[in-house]
Amino acid sequence: MDSRSIWVRVPGTSANCGPGFDSIGLACTVYNDLQLQLTEAPGCRITINGAGAGNIPCDDRNIVWQSVQYLLKKAGLADTYKGAIIHMENNVPLSRGLGSSATAIVAGLKGANALINNRFTRRELLQFATDIEGHPDNVAPAIYGGFTISTVTRGDVECFTLIPKMRLKLVVAVPDFPLSTKKAREVLPKEVPMKDAINNIGRAGMLVAALCKGNEKFLRNVFEDALHQPYRAKLIPGMYDVFSAAKKAGALGASLSGAGPCLIAYCLQRRHVEDAVGQAMQEAFARHGVKANILSLELDTRGAHILNDK
Amino acid sequence: MDSRSIWVRVPGTSANCGPGFDSIGLACTVYNDLQLQLTEAPGCRITINGAGAGNIPCDDRNIVWQSVQYLLKKAGLADTYKGAIIHMENNVPLSRGLGSSATAIVAGLKGANALINNRFTRRELLQFATDIEGHPDNVAPAIYGGFTISTVTRGDVECFTLIPKMRLKLVVAVPDFPLSTKKAREVLPKEVPMKDAINNIGRAGMLVAALCKGNEKFLRNVFEDALHQPYRAKLIPGMYDVFSAAKKAGALGASLSGAGPCLIAYCLQRRHVEDAVGQAMQEAFARHGVKANILSLELDTRGAHILNDK
Repeated sequence: MDSRSIWVRVPGTSANCGPGFDSIGLACTVYNDLQLQLTEAPGCRITINGAGAGNIPCDDRNIVWQSVQYLLKKAGLADTYKGAIIHMENNVPLSRGLGSSATAIVAGLKGANALINNRFTRRELLQFATDIEGHPDNVAPAIYGGFTISTVTRGDVECFTLIPKMRLKLVVAVPDFPLSTKKAREVLPKEVPMKDAINNIGRAGMLVAALCKGNEKFLRNVFEDALHQPYRAKLIPGMYDVFSAAKKAGALGASLSGAGPCLIAYCLQRRHVEDAVGQAMQEAFARHGVKANILSLELDTRGAHILNDK
Repeated sequence: MDSRSIWVRVPGTSANCGPGFDSIGLACTVYNDLQLQLTEAPGCRITINGAGAGNIPCDDRNIVWQSVQYLLKKAGLADTYKGAIIHMENNVPLSRGLGSSATAIVAGLKGANALINNRFTRRELLQFATDIEGHPDNVAPAIYGGFTISTVTRGDVECFTLIPKMRLKLVVAVPDFPLSTKKAREVLPKEVPMKDAINNIGRAGMLVAALCKGNEKFLRNVFEDALHQPYRAKLIPGMYDVFSAAKKAGALGASLSGAGPCLIAYCLQRRHVEDAVGQAMQEAFARHGVKANILSLELDTRGAHILNDK
């Protein structure tokens, strides 16, 4: 018997947040929705609306479908459900550094898990998603929402979620060119100066402390990074100018979103600077010949969840 | 006219706390006391009781005296007070990784500042102390107390202080041999694997989050370090065995204290495991031919302060 059909909503995510390379991430209020039905008949039928619709494979290479199969196998149900009907409504831009592939993995796992009566805990889904993606920095906030700090200890993933005491606006500049994570990883060195590691450890710690305690004045310098942004700057024309423009317009700071090319600025909501920040980022990008859309987002505090009323 | 005489109390400190290399530190309940009087007559008279009394220079090389002069110069009073009468009562063991040199710097600055009517803020004292010591990781907790997270941005020091939600016991094993910070720094590489930097960033972030939020279960793996302890292990026989013994006896985790050779274990106070942890650490050290004293301490939450009733 085929399963019922359900809808899952998964937030886009921004990894690294400056100093928290491969460790810190956040979920934001832009979403991909997945409609999923498991079938006894083999094969999958995939339809896609919205962001990246033309560029996402609709066959066995589809990440949602692969993640559904991964979970069914873990549950020993791969022989019960051999196929799926998948429909995606995507708002998270593809290959821009907002975790679109993480949304696909998490949607597939979360949806399939719901359809087999939530056999696995959220923690187990995090472990599965990390094993599929290779690192937890996008899948963790996609699953939990909020800011997340992730560690991997001998293969075992842990994730601390926190909702900051201050309300933030997240202004994201989305350039009109994609950047593959693979390419953005290739420019990184295998070894880094110890002093750069120290730079990031202190800032990551201070970022977390300031968010936990709601102490804004310590957020002034914490988004600076020495481990990945300097190397990736050459892939994103004008990156540091856009950071400066955002700060000058009133943002607390700005960073590369994941592997880019999106840039994200962090603003205090009550200061109402997000429009000015967005415009400043867009103009700074334009001076370097880059056309960028602006998304004015907030922190998603819920993470992946089932939509009961869609 | 000579100044009045005052007493300053400064806590010993433990830097790094595992993953927070050169960034995170804590103050603990072992103290050095300084009695200070500024004199118009040039020259200093220095007497010392207690830890390291025979090994601390009592002339112009004395760090307390140098720090007093540093502050007087900053205040434009170096010509008013050309000398000092200094008496130290020390409990912080010397050259063991508990920040004895930081206590001297902070005591000198704090004492002299009090005697010139607190012309400088605590933040300014932190800046001075960091400029003298070269890094903030011990002087920050010595000044502020609690756990501290420090960053240096283009020479400008910032320090976030936090008192954790859970009460901790700090069990320190003090080996009977000194280790110079210089020697312990020389064994460190200039470059480190990116994956080791990532390891520490995530753990430092999670340590801070778990302390801020009082979430003990996330403290299980956060004290592991990849950036400095592996290189310094050869200078401290049995280091990793002592860590394992502490954990097995009920500690949350353990780390090298500063540059060592002290090792520090972090325990939840309400579990009453500190005696067992101390004994286990001592025995593990003994198996490697190292004789160690055990200090059972708590977090100092006050930092350097003037003693009015001594």
